[in-house]
Amino acid sequence: MQPQILTYNQPITLESGTTLSKVDIAYNTFGELNADKSNVVWICHAFSANSNPTEWWPGMVGDGLFIDPKKYFIVCANMLGSCYGTTGPLSINPETNKKYYKDFPVVTVRDMVQTLTILRKYLGIEKIHFAAGFSMGGQQLLEWVIQEPTIFENILLGATNIKHSPWGIAFNESQRLAIQADQTFGEARDDAAIDGLKAARSIGLISYRNYKAYCKTQADTDNSKLENFKATSYQQYQGEKLVKRFNAYSYFILSKAMDNHNIERGRTNAKEVLSTVKCNTLVLGISSDYLYPLEEQQLLAKLIPHSLFVEIDSDYGHDGFLIENEQITKILSTFLKE
Amino acid sequence: MQPQILTYNQPITLESGTTLSKVDIAYNTFGELNADKSNVVWICHAFSANSNPTEWWPGMVGDGLFIDPKKYFIVCANMLGSCYGTTGPLSINPETNKKYYKDFPVVTVRDMVQTLTILRKYLGIEKIHFAAGFSMGGQQLLEWVIQEPTIFENILLGATNIKHSPWGIAFNESQRLAIQADQTFGEARDDAAIDGLKAARSIGLISYRNYKAYCKTQADTDNSKLENFKATSYQQYQGEKLVKRFNAYSYFILSKAMDNHNIERGRTNAKEVLSTVKCNTLVLGISSDYLYPLEEQQLLAKLIPHSLFVEIDSDYGHDGFLIENEQITKILSTFLKE
Repeated sequence: MQPQILTYNQPITLESGTTLSKVDIAYNTFGELNADKSNVVWICHAFSANSNPTEWWPGMVGDGLFIDPKKYFIVCANMLGSCYGTTGPLSINPETNKKYYKDFPVVTVRDMVQTLTILRKYLGIEKIHFAAGFSMGGQQLLEWVIQEPTIFENILLGATNIKHSPWGIAFNESQRLAIQADQTFGEARDDAAIDGLKAARSIGLISYRNYKAYCKTQADTDNSKLENFKATSYQQYQGEKLVKRFNAYSYFILSKAMDNHNIERGRTNAKEVLSTVKCNTLVLGISSDYLYPLEEQQLLAKLIPHSLFVEIDSDYGHDGFLIENEQITKILSTFLKE
Repeated sequence: MQPQILTYNQPITLESGTTLSKVDIAYNTFGELNADKSNVVWICHAFSANSNPTEWWPGMVGDGLFIDPKKYFIVCANMLGSCYGTTGPLSINPETNKKYYKDFPVVTVRDMVQTLTILRKYLGIEKIHFAAGFSMGGQQLLEWVIQEPTIFENILLGATNIKHSPWGIAFNESQRLAIQADQTFGEARDDAAIDGLKAARSIGLISYRNYKAYCKTQADTDNSKLENFKATSYQQYQGEKLVKRFNAYSYFILSKAMDNHNIERGRTNAKEVLSTVKCNTLVLGISSDYLYPLEEQQLLAKLIPHSLFVEIDSDYGHDGFLIENEQITKILSTFLKE
């Protein structure tokens, strides 16, 4: 399902000070906005996903599922810097009439939120009944709620954090080093640095899982092997799969945006900043999440006034948020009823 | 301190079936062998280290320390495939009179043990009073004890395992993908793929630490930054540091040897194999080790007859074995007294 494109022909100034003279925002909607515009559900997607949650969150969004287009007007926008339609490194730089590639400026989660607000206003939405974001999607939603606290009624912040951790940054930097190790990084073509990107995905994947998940799914039964283990093929396969659908420059720039997520930047401290969040907030953490560990969500819940913290029991690590749909549905049903 | 080189001029057959027509074994010794040859301490080094433990284990080996050359005859050999003197990818292939580089064959931990036995016999050692190996050093020592059970009196197996986990293999494969993403990998020169190696080290480093260790040591205090965080510089710095002292082909081949460590290969099962270990065995695990988690050492201790399992409380993850010298000294003092 192709996204729609909103072309915003006014300049937007990024946090870095750089200006983008125009921005395309790719988005999908599902269902119909009701008469009093009270049925909006907004989903913020994570790192390498796109604006179609029925693709990457198939157990949660769709007919008969918890986030049902028969009931809700569902919106999801592709994040700034990505390669799924919103302006990013593969877009034409109006100043040079060539694609940005490596020259695309550093963006931040707050810059992404600017585009979400532009889209929200364009769609005539004044109230969001429910918004959900996991991981980097949660980072966007958190920034958005801080910037526009009166828009939201209920939000779900899942497997996310107040600022990105040194540990998360080290994982991202390792991925960028792998991309940069590919000597084609910097070349002006869509498929630059795909070998580096393949390695980067392999690293990222590790951070989304854990020891147990690998033992469960990637253990060899053949004890005679000296190479080509199940886990080696799996890493290669996942790398190759991503390379077919993603771009190294977008990966690079989005990982930097994840790194610089920090709600305290240019403000006071997290406690004061989060005291302004007025909506009902559900904070979800995954028991075995090693990239965004539980303590990060516990802190969020402690500092957000009307919030509830729930731990999802899962062996799947950070990726649990894409897998544990049954638990999430149950928790959300209770949360939105209350 | 330059290692000594034992040149073994007979062919050795590797587990893969490939033959090396001669092997150099680089080793260091410290102290003097006593008259009844009863004071031998043998140390097996880990992944990227060398045959000089006073360099990489400075809190444990040296005058006045627990492993004291005034008391013991200390031996450590560089592992097969490494780049610190023992035959490896940077050695001359006698068949071509050129360096092996990418053509160096796959080796295994058992192949490494072959060279340790050659060196032991050459040095006239029939009894090893105490042997220690952590991580990949522990993998070698474990294989060695299985192959020559009567040689050892007391051993320390630290932060190691029975077979390498799918999780560990996934980490290693990610590192190899990063090395291979560097298009100079395969070129016949010592500094091939150094950018890939830099990325690989950055990944490896993550696996040796954990969330807490990074929060403790790599957190930024400046909230205004958009890039160049402390954790990013740290990953780069550690990568650059390794590149100055290591080689991408050795890194590649040693990581494969770590992957194929499996005491069950060609034998029965771990329980039966380990029932043949007769020496006093101390198994150490590090509470926060994410690469070789505690359950791996608990299983080792469960299956080795005369063994004791002790957990080291540390926030430093797998690298704790290089850091927690005070705890290790205390535990070892008790163990060797008993």
